[in-house]
Amino acid sequence: MSDAVVLDREDVLADKRSLFSLPSNTVYLDGNSLGALPTACKQAAQAVVEHQWGDDLITSWNKHQWIDLPSRVGDKIGRLIGAKAGQVVCCDTISTNLFKVLSAAIKMSPERKTIATTKDNFPTDIYMAEGLLSLLGDEYRIQFIDENDVASQLHDDIAVLMLTQVNFRSGRKQDITAVTAAAHEKGILTLWDLAHSAGAFAVHLDEANADFAVGCTYKYLNGGPGSPAFVYVAERHQARYQQPLSGWMGHSTPFAFSHEYTPHDSVKRNLCGTPGVIGMQVLDAALSVFDNTDMALIEDKSAKLQAYFLAKLEAHGLAESFTLASPAAAERGSQLAFSHPEAYAICQAWIDKGVIADFRAPDILRVGFAPLYLRFADIEHAVNELALIVNNKTYLRSQYQVVNDVT
Amino acid sequence: MSDAVVLDREDVLADKRSLFSLPSNTVYLDGNSLGALPTACKQAAQAVVEHQWGDDLITSWNKHQWIDLPSRVGDKIGRLIGAKAGQVVCCDTISTNLFKVLSAAIKMSPERKTIATTKDNFPTDIYMAEGLLSLLGDEYRIQFIDENDVASQLHDDIAVLMLTQVNFRSGRKQDITAVTAAAHEKGILTLWDLAHSAGAFAVHLDEANADFAVGCTYKYLNGGPGSPAFVYVAERHQARYQQPLSGWMGHSTPFAFSHEYTPHDSVKRNLCGTPGVIGMQVLDAALSVFDNTDMALIEDKSAKLQAYFLAKLEAHGLAESFTLASPAAAERGSQLAFSHPEAYAICQAWIDKGVIADFRAPDILRVGFAPLYLRFADIEHAVNELALIVNNKTYLRSQYQVVNDVT
Repeated sequence: MSDAVVLDREDVLADKRSLFSLPSNTVYLDGNSLGALPTACKQAAQAVVEHQWGDDLITSWNKHQWIDLPSRVGDKIGRLIGAKAGQVVCCDTISTNLFKVLSAAIKMSPERKTIATTKDNFPTDIYMAEGLLSLLGDEYRIQFIDENDVASQLHDDIAVLMLTQVNFRSGRKQDITAVTAAAHEKGILTLWDLAHSAGAFAVHLDEANADFAVGCTYKYLNGGPGSPAFVYVAERHQARYQQPLSGWMGHSTPFAFSHEYTPHDSVKRNLCGTPGVIGMQVLDAALSVFDNTDMALIEDKSAKLQAYFLAKLEAHGLAESFTLASPAAAERGSQLAFSHPEAYAICQAWIDKGVIADFRAPDILRVGFAPLYLRFADIEHAVNELALIVNNKTYLRSQYQVVNDVT
Repeated sequence: MSDAVVLDREDVLADKRSLFSLPSNTVYLDGNSLGALPTACKQAAQAVVEHQWGDDLITSWNKHQWIDLPSRVGDKIGRLIGAKAGQVVCCDTISTNLFKVLSAAIKMSPERKTIATTKDNFPTDIYMAEGLLSLLGDEYRIQFIDENDVASQLHDDIAVLMLTQVNFRSGRKQDITAVTAAAHEKGILTLWDLAHSAGAFAVHLDEANADFAVGCTYKYLNGGPGSPAFVYVAERHQARYQQPLSGWMGHSTPFAFSHEYTPHDSVKRNLCGTPGVIGMQVLDAALSVFDNTDMALIEDKSAKLQAYFLAKLEAHGLAESFTLASPAAAERGSQLAFSHPEAYAICQAWIDKGVIADFRAPDILRVGFAPLYLRFADIEHAVNELALIVNNKTYLRSQYQVVNDVT
């Protein structure tokens, strides 16, 4: 009996895999880019399109409580990131939500003019901050700080510290509690991008005394391609929080069609336009895979899957040629990054063998671990295939050398 | 043979109704709020969820060309609003898109500080403009002008004239060509909200020399609840157009993960976050109902449906108690608004009889005409039911008097 079989037998989350519809003959190590399909989403998509929209039409806003969807789904996400009810709302995209929070946060400390972030933050976060600055004027600036030592670089002109908890390339994970405490000591508000955190491991926003967070739902939350994002605003900030994308759905009484904008007395003031109901109902169904579990168990399984992957790599003699570009276990999220000069071609050859991972420029092979649907046997198979590709040098074939992937 | 039967036989668009899945025993006069379900959307929802997402996972960005969806769907919408290819992109919500365009447009005339709009513009448009002003500073302002005489109120400090073509309450329609010409004479850029225009009648953005437009797709375009919106930027403005919601999908090469934001060299610079693929694929399918038709035919049928409704109202002796709050046929969109002191209760009673219209405060019964799926026989039936409700005073029953509708 292989060690993978033993580990799968001992896995307390093993039953969760049956809640997903996974393609056969595939090991999916890209759940950190687009999560797999929870089977419940099929029925949910059909129900919202055929029954709610088709049969009940406009009356569904009441009958099927579409109007409450952003809060209902938001609270479900909140439970997975350590936020008690009433602090998370589901809406728009992570980029748009980041713009809202950043705008609101920077106005809360009017004497401070700096947004601090890391150079290797996910690019869209920086682009959005730059877009905001183009409106705010010349006295505002972005300062790039070293992601390896955030606390020591904080100073009194920083209004907002905007960090992605897990680096999208390396998988390096920031300690929300420690960094938030260091920021607060300097009077700095924190904005956490949880794109690679939510659903992957335990996050404790309330406990960490975090101020704001945003996240997407199409990675470890398995909400589907381009599923709607979320925003967290700590309760203590909500009354003072004013965001500029003040669309009608964030109004206290949107259907009064009032001339005056009066923001909703809650985190719902982050809502802007009409919510994407179809995508949000599908996401709502997707979140059901997290019922009756605990993020600590998911985090634990992720650590074991990663350790097992590394052990197998070592056993195949591949640990030297694939340089681990991720930090140690305690300091990384639910992914492993390896630098290899032929990373792109190897990734393509691996995909052809049914093992889906992804490549990140310039030379990173990125392996994501989605604990709810990955088995240890999948990891064993994936590394076996990798060893064959490397040992037989199949990745040198010309079709793997052409860079044409958009993702 | 009733006149409705004759009119339905003569209707060149009569076959289009078979492309929709409509609930039985219902006359749907609220397609101006949420369009009905095109049958093709059922299959599209299933295909994108089960096949594209479920089976092909992340590879779908290439394999099913998700990456081109915003442009592909945008161009399809463009054909319905008189915009040649490359000027429309599908993304985000109408509110968010309005913010983008308004931000970009106001920066194009740096010496001008006024956004002009009408007081009875759809509230979210005004809220979004106010949100933008909260970032831009005190020298900027919104000026409200009279919607009945826009041209005479234009002046040299107006940077952008932001108008909804069709008033959501009254149905009053602005003449895009004439107003745009008057605005351009004063050096003013125009931003048209086409929420109640697109798919309802012929719009000729290019011919009218319009500058910018935004619109939603869940009304007359039948894209489904909260379906993604669109933006039009006239080709001549695209190179100079800089919008602040500069997310990664608007980058010229998003997957290079570059540190520098370089906007895409086209209308795609309006893209921000990851597109909501499920909703956009459903919308793409919905637009197929417009294949092989002409917006002029749709506009013509709308006019006939409206005239028929008014004639029947007159025939039932109801034309006096229901005061037409819409302008004359040539000056309105695809809806009729009636003021009636008991409009709310009458609307509720009508819905109970299977005729779905809506109420808009303070006293408006709003009747929308979606030419692709409404028959003259439906109109006849709807007005018959209305006459029964009014003549029997059933709307006075207590259950119709409680205001609890959110839509």
